[in-house]
Amino acid sequence: MTARAHSGDVLALCGGIGGAKLALGLYRVLEAGRLTLVVNTGDDFEHLGLNISPDLDTVLYTLAGLADPERGWGRAQETWEFIAALRQLDGEAWFQLGDRDLAMHVLRTNWLRSGKTLTEFAAHMARQLGISARILPMTDAAVRTIVDTSEGHLPFQHYFVRRRCEPAMRGIRFEGATEARPAPGLVEFIGSQALRAIVICPSNPYLSIDPIVAVPGIAAALGASAAPVVAVSPIIGGQAVKGPTGKIMAELGIAASTRAIAAHYRGLIDGLVIDEDDADDRVQIGVPVLVTRTLMKDIADRERLARNVVDFADTIALQPSAKVGGGGRR
Amino acid sequence: MTARAHSGDVLALCGGIGGAKLALGLYRVLEAGRLTLVVNTGDDFEHLGLNISPDLDTVLYTLAGLADPERGWGRAQETWEFIAALRQLDGEAWFQLGDRDLAMHVLRTNWLRSGKTLTEFAAHMARQLGISARILPMTDAAVRTIVDTSEGHLPFQHYFVRRRCEPAMRGIRFEGATEARPAPGLVEFIGSQALRAIVICPSNPYLSIDPIVAVPGIAAALGASAAPVVAVSPIIGGQAVKGPTGKIMAELGIAASTRAIAAHYRGLIDGLVIDEDDADDRVQIGVPVLVTRTLMKDIADRERLARNVVDFADTIALQPSAKVGGGGRR
Repeated sequence: MTARAHSGDVLALCGGIGGAKLALGLYRVLEAGRLTLVVNTGDDFEHLGLNISPDLDTVLYTLAGLADPERGWGRAQETWEFIAALRQLDGEAWFQLGDRDLAMHVLRTNWLRSGKTLTEFAAHMARQLGISARILPMTDAAVRTIVDTSEGHLPFQHYFVRRRCEPAMRGIRFEGATEARPAPGLVEFIGSQALRAIVICPSNPYLSIDPIVAVPGIAAALGASAAPVVAVSPIIGGQAVKGPTGKIMAELGIAASTRAIAAHYRGLIDGLVIDEDDADDRVQIGVPVLVTRTLMKDIADRERLARNVVDFADTIALQPSAKVGGGGRR
Repeated sequence: MTARAHSGDVLALCGGIGGAKLALGLYRVLEAGRLTLVVNTGDDFEHLGLNISPDLDTVLYTLAGLADPERGWGRAQETWEFIAALRQLDGEAWFQLGDRDLAMHVLRTNWLRSGKTLTEFAAHMARQLGISARILPMTDAAVRTIVDTSEGHLPFQHYFVRRRCEPAMRGIRFEGATEARPAPGLVEFIGSQALRAIVICPSNPYLSIDPIVAVPGIAAALGASAAPVVAVSPIIGGQAVKGPTGKIMAELGIAASTRAIAAHYRGLIDGLVIDEDDADDRVQIGVPVLVTRTLMKDIADRERLARNVVDFADTIALQPSAKVGGGGRR
């Protein structure tokens, strides 16, 4: 790494659980204040009158050291008295809301109702939780991921939690995306000369990264950025690591492979990080590839992968862009 | 008691903790479906964006057998993880909200935001909790008790909970009362021929009963009712049993005595139930008086007092009104 690289900012795009693992790695290996995270808000929804932002909370809790290590979402040492009482009172109890977690939702709901923005809320909470990274929602507008399924069009959490991803997925759209604007300062930041690397975390590309890129202005800014865009494939050994990615890819007629991820991100990325188990795919990616261990079982894994990803990005920054289909972007 | 009396309806006016004790006694000794409670909502407030109705919830929890027997308010076996998390996130944590209790506030807030009324919510919750009494808020409008204190005008919960009743009270007003309308059906019910008795529970007269009577139409309906209005004095042995009643009376320049309570309710009541310790006051009350034990330490006390109060009302119902200053009411 060069000295310049060491002092540069890193921007990471992420969704919830899978993405937050690498986000934590980046947070721990970068200098304080050097990490900005743009978080998917397509999963957000209003439930029981509360504004719930699952991915944003997962990132906040993870970086603050409050996340539950087993579940990945919600808070550690959580209790569930509220949801039990809600069930007793015939309230809608299909979405698990922990007693501690609820404080975040109540505060956010009150915050938004008072006319303040989600961007301001995320910054306030990051400060409150002692997080030195900047955490941005992709937008302050309501962008809602709607899943077209065998049971009709379902809001994301209804598909994901209420129906446990059981209905077959036929398509995905991001309601409200075309009218949305990126979070304040985000486009300018992507265009900043101080930016060292842009990392797409190994989140679900279709459900967690696509909504971010669907916000008008973000894709163009990424394409025009002087910093390399490097994605980490969520595929290991031809299988999705976790969550519904594999099932979704199959239902959408896409083979769960590193090459399919590369094809999906074509034109957006300047480099791809793939797992050693998929090393055979490296020749068909079309952008520079880093082959490494991408499975993150513990903190050491996250830190090591984060270092590898940033180092890899640094090598790309020093050579002419090799982005497939994006040759004219600079 | 006459046969007619046995089958009649009883209406009770009450506030929170003290009133709910007698309300429970009445609930247990009357035939199912014969009790209607009108509950003070002057203590209601919006906190953290949640609509909180302390007295209504105390009554619901008490009649459902869910109330905490020690505190009097909130739910038994309550946990406090939410409020701890709220404090950690720098939220306003001076008003204790239990994890189980929170389900009620979240559901009510969502219910009211959807355009439905507090009256409908109370009925829904009573049904949900298996309560056979009818529980009515005094009004669906926002009537807010404001306390004029040595520290300025304070919303009730700020005075009562946040400032622990420490500022000296100079006066009380019920903001929004003049524009409020009684809960649907309440005035008609007070005028019903089926009404056997109207009981004013031993709640704080100034903070819990006065707001109810301040809702236009309720005082007139009580005055015109064919059923006797009987109050239970919250004073025992020249002292307020519990809560801030004694301090408030002193600050308002009123001696904490049964006679002061009688004077306060003059024109409204047809009979007063006082404690044996205040038996000496019986001759100066101006309406028929029942002297009995009014302290309610256990369930048996509540049931016995409830029976005594209703039996006492039945004796008044059978004789011409002796209401002081209210001779022309029928």
